[in-house]
Amino acid sequence: MAAPDLTVSARATLRRKAERGSHDRALVDAILDEGLLCHVGFADGGSPVVLPTAYARVGDELYLHGAVGNQMLRTLAAGAAACVTVTLLDGIVLARSAKHHSMNYRSVVLFGAARKVTDPEEKRRALLEIVDHMAPGRSGDARPPNEAELTATLVLAFPVDEGSAKVRAGGPVDEAEDLALGVWAGELPLRLTPGAPVADEGVEGPVPGYVAGYERGGGRR
Amino acid sequence: MAAPDLTVSARATLRRKAERGSHDRALVDAILDEGLLCHVGFADGGSPVVLPTAYARVGDELYLHGAVGNQMLRTLAAGAAACVTVTLLDGIVLARSAKHHSMNYRSVVLFGAARKVTDPEEKRRALLEIVDHMAPGRSGDARPPNEAELTATLVLAFPVDEGSAKVRAGGPVDEAEDLALGVWAGELPLRLTPGAPVADEGVEGPVPGYVAGYERGGGRR
Repeated sequence: MAAPDLTVSARATLRRKAERGSHDRALVDAILDEGLLCHVGFADGGSPVVLPTAYARVGDELYLHGAVGNQMLRTLAAGAAACVTVTLLDGIVLARSAKHHSMNYRSVVLFGAARKVTDPEEKRRALLEIVDHMAPGRSGDARPPNEAELTATLVLAFPVDEGSAKVRAGGPVDEAEDLALGVWAGELPLRLTPGAPVADEGVEGPVPGYVAGYERGGGRR
Repeated sequence: MAAPDLTVSARATLRRKAERGSHDRALVDAILDEGLLCHVGFADGGSPVVLPTAYARVGDELYLHGAVGNQMLRTLAAGAAACVTVTLLDGIVLARSAKHHSMNYRSVVLFGAARKVTDPEEKRRALLEIVDHMAPGRSGDARPPNEAELTATLVLAFPVDEGSAKVRAGGPVDEAEDLALGVWAGELPLRLTPGAPVADEGVEGPVPGYVAGYERGGGRR
């Protein structure tokens, strides 16, 4: 059964360029699953703070993790309101006028409060999911977390429930009177691409397939 | 004269993995100048909100822009405390243990409050800087903003003053007892790379050099 669409609260209601927005869970999940980093926003003593971190989506939640002393995670674990945003940059859009320059992107903005994961088995699974989110299949090779590592790690689950997705794709949208200007206009697609893997010192044996053939998303290309 | 290093206030003091951090302006500027998107955090009626947007650094400020009705910009223009974060993802790091998996990245986190740009000449220059930040040299070809477009656009300047940079680079750091596990470990570099330019309908003439030879940063490779 497909997951229900995102909840459209007042803060999750699209304002600017609402025609680019969506609350469709399939789109939201595709963006979350392609992204590698999210940006987490929270208040630290009244000051907004935005920090990048890794994550993995499992069903209707995003797992976040870090050291037990991590201030951001501790704040979220205490129930603080937070916003988690994932943005995929797909290209730059060069219009004939400066004004209509833009970027192509797919983003998801989620609102909510995190749940602290306390069950050791769920913690262990969450950490392996984060590893597999980075490189699908990797958890089958890496040594799993031991008890001491689990104890030293704070794991949170953030709801994929309230928020929205936004997508801009395609070429420039110019004013009719600018079309004859003779200025080159169009889109330059951008994509996160892997370079050559760099083996750590002392590593022998072949590069695993999930590294050698690494590919991220590509759903929209 | 080189710009002074970032101000290290309480909120700009590095906590987690402080050894990866820096307040060096040359590093901060290099990251800001390579990035295409920033994530802006602010409070909207008590709720943290994080939204991606374009920017350009000019000296000690980042210019942000959008429609005059843009809620985020209006909030910032009213003097709200904000956090602007730019993150460049440089690779995934596969360690022998799940726990030591990581990402290579360069990020800048800035705290402050924006200044509303009201001088039409500064507004015009800011908009051209944002175009040139996207594709260096582009403002020489694009039609500049006219009076109506300037009036319809809100431009803010956010201080590059208080905050920090953080960098992780290189391969995995494994536990000594894991080195003999025989698991492949290393770094997979990732880079934002351009695809083939897509000309807009009706566009004739050659692809400009700043599009055909597009390259983003690369300072660390």
